[in-house]
Amino acid sequence: MSESSVRNMQFFTAFTDEPLPLDGGQLLSNVTISYETYGTLNSSHSNAVLVCHPLSGDSHASSLNTPGDPGWWDTMIGENKPIDTNRYFVICTNVIGGCKGSTGPASINPLTQVPFGLNFPVVTIGDMVNVQYELIRHLGIDVLHCVIGGSMGGMQALEWAIKFPNHVRSVVPIAATARLSPQSLAFDAVGRNAIILDQSWNNGFYYGLTDQPEKGLAIARMIGHITYLSDEAMTLKFGRNLQKKTDYGYDFSTDFQVESYLKYQGEKFVSRFDANSYLYLTKAISYFDLYKKYDGLENAFKSSTARFLIISISSDWLYPSKQSKDIVKSLMKINKDVSFAEIQSPYGHDAFLMPCPDLEQLVTHFLGHHVTS
Amino acid sequence: MSESSVRNMQFFTAFTDEPLPLDGGQLLSNVTISYETYGTLNSSHSNAVLVCHPLSGDSHASSLNTPGDPGWWDTMIGENKPIDTNRYFVICTNVIGGCKGSTGPASINPLTQVPFGLNFPVVTIGDMVNVQYELIRHLGIDVLHCVIGGSMGGMQALEWAIKFPNHVRSVVPIAATARLSPQSLAFDAVGRNAIILDQSWNNGFYYGLTDQPEKGLAIARMIGHITYLSDEAMTLKFGRNLQKKTDYGYDFSTDFQVESYLKYQGEKFVSRFDANSYLYLTKAISYFDLYKKYDGLENAFKSSTARFLIISISSDWLYPSKQSKDIVKSLMKINKDVSFAEIQSPYGHDAFLMPCPDLEQLVTHFLGHHVTS
Repeated sequence: MSESSVRNMQFFTAFTDEPLPLDGGQLLSNVTISYETYGTLNSSHSNAVLVCHPLSGDSHASSLNTPGDPGWWDTMIGENKPIDTNRYFVICTNVIGGCKGSTGPASINPLTQVPFGLNFPVVTIGDMVNVQYELIRHLGIDVLHCVIGGSMGGMQALEWAIKFPNHVRSVVPIAATARLSPQSLAFDAVGRNAIILDQSWNNGFYYGLTDQPEKGLAIARMIGHITYLSDEAMTLKFGRNLQKKTDYGYDFSTDFQVESYLKYQGEKFVSRFDANSYLYLTKAISYFDLYKKYDGLENAFKSSTARFLIISISSDWLYPSKQSKDIVKSLMKINKDVSFAEIQSPYGHDAFLMPCPDLEQLVTHFLGHHVTS
Repeated sequence: MSESSVRNMQFFTAFTDEPLPLDGGQLLSNVTISYETYGTLNSSHSNAVLVCHPLSGDSHASSLNTPGDPGWWDTMIGENKPIDTNRYFVICTNVIGGCKGSTGPASINPLTQVPFGLNFPVVTIGDMVNVQYELIRHLGIDVLHCVIGGSMGGMQALEWAIKFPNHVRSVVPIAATARLSPQSLAFDAVGRNAIILDQSWNNGFYYGLTDQPEKGLAIARMIGHITYLSDEAMTLKFGRNLQKKTDYGYDFSTDFQVESYLKYQGEKFVSRFDANSYLYLTKAISYFDLYKKYDGLENAFKSSTARFLIISISSDWLYPSKQSKDIVKSLMKINKDVSFAEIQSPYGHDAFLMPCPDLEQLVTHFLGHHVTS
């Protein structure tokens, strides 16, 4: 984390009197979330947009206040951008369970005065959203103009529409799903296993030690990256091109560009992410199941009053379009206000993090259509 | 390996006078391959079928001679089965680089009298086939009736048709490809990384040590298993069912059946497979590229005289049907005798290892159509 983003980051601690009852049955007190804001809250407090980050994101979504320190959604947030900071007051929080300022497994456990490690309770997408709600109230906002996010961020948007129907006017879940398929569960499980089998993981209590579970985390990240891209994207980007070689090496060094890219992604990730947070967040994603939790999708959304814009990506095979369409069908069946767009892109699940004119246009129009001032 | 299969296994050592020149430029002497045979070679030596195994297979393809010790292709090989041992003399060899009796990284290096480890040269599918050819000659066979195999075995069948056009009458590559896509390269690369990053791997020199790279190999196997099944197969088999639980555990134990299955597959594999062989065989698979090696597919097959039956599996996303169709198109363009069938199955890449009536019927008819006695 660069110093400039630290300077821009704010903190809010909720559940100081009464603890937060978690979905897993445990209680969590003094829950801190880190957040950043961009733009200005208008006098009627009606122009707030909550941006929710995907697995490896954080509260630093935009470089607006910290030029030179890129945010993870600079394509979408800023002056005259789709989430226009001239019009909207934009909030982005790091989720609980994360490792970028919010309470998570690396935080100090007040009972023991050492990091929680695996004593941190397993949290759900619903728990994350409950804490965000407290922040929104704290900021003096009663009704959010919109909750928007991709992947795990889209799951949060869906939960907002369900949990807080009176406090959110619209939601935009992008490349999201109401529950992971078994294949996606499997990829997350193998990633977690790679961390857990790394002996430096030390049952989750590696904070302050010399050995860190970097190898396991790197493998988990590499697996993840394959699922975030499509085969087509990899073909366009790398093909079977060799990395700085004219022929195979006939050894076990890196031969192909795609290998080199994944290795680089793995190594880069370990310097900025906590292995335990990877476990907690993928667990929250795996547990996310609106069908199970609310006894079916129609039941889940029956009290929702938000306008929905559901966006999927044609080449996303991690959370395929079909899963977004199933959400749309359920919403239509119960006469909710829902729009749907499948973005034609070869870049797979992560296309929403890249420059994407179709996505930018869709969000610009949807947000602008019903802005109140 | 059970005792009965050891008893049934035979060995042949080739390249005792002149070494084998490998595709990678190195020389390998005294190359042993282990093999099993089923059925009887006829008097004209014209009824021999060479079965080639996939990555994790070995020479024990059938339980015909060892009742109670299942072979990996018992669905296909045996009396009155598609590869009918009443009619055909069936040969299955363990590939070089493997760990089931053929020369590989765990074999004793004659120069040092200790296992090769990483001093074993990187071998290719072409190298594997060159050694098989020597065995076939040794067995007194001039022309094979057929070379058949799935996945990596199908790659060997393709190389046979190219390298030895006068010694093979027909080939049946199943769920094979002429080259891996970048996505499939990526999965293999991450699997290798999981082994290499396991500190018990010890740069490949772990033979005889207490610590074995079991964790890395288990992770590699789990990744592999996801790619061998389809999402549909996982949905049919496991869905999001919990493993011996009625609700989530809210901890990091195994929650879902699909997790439990993969963990079991990983743990089971390490007891029967050598981690270095996993590195060598996936490297051979990654290097397999008939386009590159022969300057295009049409050029690759131009001297082939074999009849081809190319079989793909509709739900195979590791080596998708499109890749088989590309082989078929090239063969048709140069007027080769080729048949093609896409088997409709939800079970993904590994469908050829399961009972599959369509596959059984196709192979029965293709083999029987042009048998000579």
